[in-house]
Amino acid sequence: MTWLETVSERIGPLDAHGSAEAAARLDRLTKPPGSLGRLEALAIRLAGITGAVILRFERPAVVVFAADHGVTAQGVSAYPSHVTAQMVANFIGGGAAINVLARRAGARVVVVDVGVAGPIPGVGDGRAPGGAGGAGGAQFIANRIADGTRDMTREAAMTPAETLAGIEAGRSTVAELIGGGCDLLGVGEMGIGNTTAASAIAAVLTGRPAAEVTGRGTGLDDPAVRHKVTVIEAAIDRHRPDPADPIGVLAAVGGFEIAALTGAILAAAEAHVPVVLDGFITGSAALVAAAIAPGLSPRLVASHTSAEPGHRIVLAHLGLRPLLDLELRLGEGSGAALALPLVAASTAILAEMATFDSAGVSGPR
Amino acid sequence: MTWLETVSERIGPLDAHGSAEAAARLDRLTKPPGSLGRLEALAIRLAGITGAVILRFERPAVVVFAADHGVTAQGVSAYPSHVTAQMVANFIGGGAAINVLARRAGARVVVVDVGVAGPIPGVGDGRAPGGAGGAGGAQFIANRIADGTRDMTREAAMTPAETLAGIEAGRSTVAELIGGGCDLLGVGEMGIGNTTAASAIAAVLTGRPAAEVTGRGTGLDDPAVRHKVTVIEAAIDRHRPDPADPIGVLAAVGGFEIAALTGAILAAAEAHVPVVLDGFITGSAALVAAAIAPGLSPRLVASHTSAEPGHRIVLAHLGLRPLLDLELRLGEGSGAALALPLVAASTAILAEMATFDSAGVSGPR
Repeated sequence: MTWLETVSERIGPLDAHGSAEAAARLDRLTKPPGSLGRLEALAIRLAGITGAVILRFERPAVVVFAADHGVTAQGVSAYPSHVTAQMVANFIGGGAAINVLARRAGARVVVVDVGVAGPIPGVGDGRAPGGAGGAGGAQFIANRIADGTRDMTREAAMTPAETLAGIEAGRSTVAELIGGGCDLLGVGEMGIGNTTAASAIAAVLTGRPAAEVTGRGTGLDDPAVRHKVTVIEAAIDRHRPDPADPIGVLAAVGGFEIAALTGAILAAAEAHVPVVLDGFITGSAALVAAAIAPGLSPRLVASHTSAEPGHRIVLAHLGLRPLLDLELRLGEGSGAALALPLVAASTAILAEMATFDSAGVSGPR
Repeated sequence: MTWLETVSERIGPLDAHGSAEAAARLDRLTKPPGSLGRLEALAIRLAGITGAVILRFERPAVVVFAADHGVTAQGVSAYPSHVTAQMVANFIGGGAAINVLARRAGARVVVVDVGVAGPIPGVGDGRAPGGAGGAGGAQFIANRIADGTRDMTREAAMTPAETLAGIEAGRSTVAELIGGGCDLLGVGEMGIGNTTAASAIAAVLTGRPAAEVTGRGTGLDDPAVRHKVTVIEAAIDRHRPDPADPIGVLAAVGGFEIAALTGAILAAAEAHVPVVLDGFITGSAALVAAAIAPGLSPRLVASHTSAEPGHRIVLAHLGLRPLLDLELRLGEGSGAALALPLVAASTAILAEMATFDSAGVSGPR
């Protein structure tokens, strides 16, 4: 049996005892019961995910998987493909939004090249050993499986072996991070063209028409969005991926970073480390992961609803309600980083607030 | 001319040049234009409020005004009045939600007794000099104007002189905080019974029926909410406060902490320091402040929409859209503290991200 075949069993259900203990403790704290609203619900769920009521999240990390997409040949993105490599260099240098936002949240950033096409400025062909990045920059891990995917309108985006290698790249990265003490994982991505792959995956796994789950990406106008829908429909029509075979869906219309995100999410869930999703792309990976491990969803925290129309559909399918609605459409893990302080605040309440008894405060009449 | 009569002029309009410069800089940063959504709009507004594009918010503070309400004699709250004093002691000791949440946001907490009834455990009658609080606790300022308000269903909650003293207590506290370097102000409150006062103010200043702006407070059931509406209607009926006389409205149906919040908000706006509102009570004070200084609203940041039904109405009246929707109904400044990291993140983007030029990243095709 492979890791993928057995991971669902090892993830298992939430710890009901942990959740119950957290809920009971919340009602003893010096506040009207339930008055911290969704923050309390989140704290209860985090206790269920981890099995611990007193949680401090001292080593949060945001892992960003980067890869390119052959389907960009069909003109589905407002930006040229080589921006993927340039942005990876920017992550390493510390100048991107995810660097700024993760720094503010006290989280490290790890960027993994799992399939960028062409050299990364300052790094080379992406097969060079990892570096620590500039001051305030991301740690870089080179794990390039191929120079981007193939064009999904002409052939499968990845071979079965490449797909499994992508999943394994995500799994091993997260296993290592968690081995090093990471106790809260934000996930993000960079890949010009990857909203096309995410829309295709979302269409197949939620059963919705491509037009409903396709949006502007980084800035397409209306005719370009219509063209993008046609491209996605053509790819789905060519491969007719089976929603009951999530890895086959990934191979046909996915991408290396989405495969890696799938492995990363499953690995964190297996270790009972909470996963904070970012936007539409990480959501599409969560769809794949939840298709592999059906009990997975409650271990995921939806950071925000993005401006991509498919994102709401994906989150509803996963049964997740986002914490933020800031009309973000950047990716990189930016929404996950913005939500980390809320996640940490929810558990700090449990760890640090006084009880009615300890503070000598009267309860309701 | 008094401070209150001239403060509106000194607040003045936003700095359009600062906003324009921030907007232009945002479009040069390494992200698709507008892709950080409402965070970008907030950064632009903060530049307009302060006149500065590069902002770091190194000394955020949350000021919590506490007072009691004579109208609790009418049975409008789920908790007894002496909980106000007990919770002030809890703030000083560091065990309340606001202590935990402000600490996580890197903000100090200052709690001001402007009208608590009865002694504060460990402090005395509230007229003792201020203390620094326990480890991680709030700084305490004693500025008690009276032992709570009078019952608004029988007489005016405050005399005109008391009302002005309440406003002045807020103004002077914030002037001192800003003099000491505070560059971002969250506002909060504690006062058993104060959703009743806030609902009465909101009804008068928005022109909506009391039933539409009245909710469960800290936990009333349906019959108790209906009774609370009757109490508010009776108070409004007795005083018939003139919406064109905001200070008269405060005196008739307000409270000492709401008066102090009004002065605090005006003083921060005058100093061009951004104000992060909390929930329904601070929103009602903002209504009063905006009635005194009509150009005020764009200087306020709405942290969240609370579970109190009147809050959405108040925010819409102020033209503000909240950052969070977490179904909070605690007060204390808890929602403001939770939003501080988002506010700081929006300006960190401007201060710390690389530009397309500096990072060597290509723009759109």
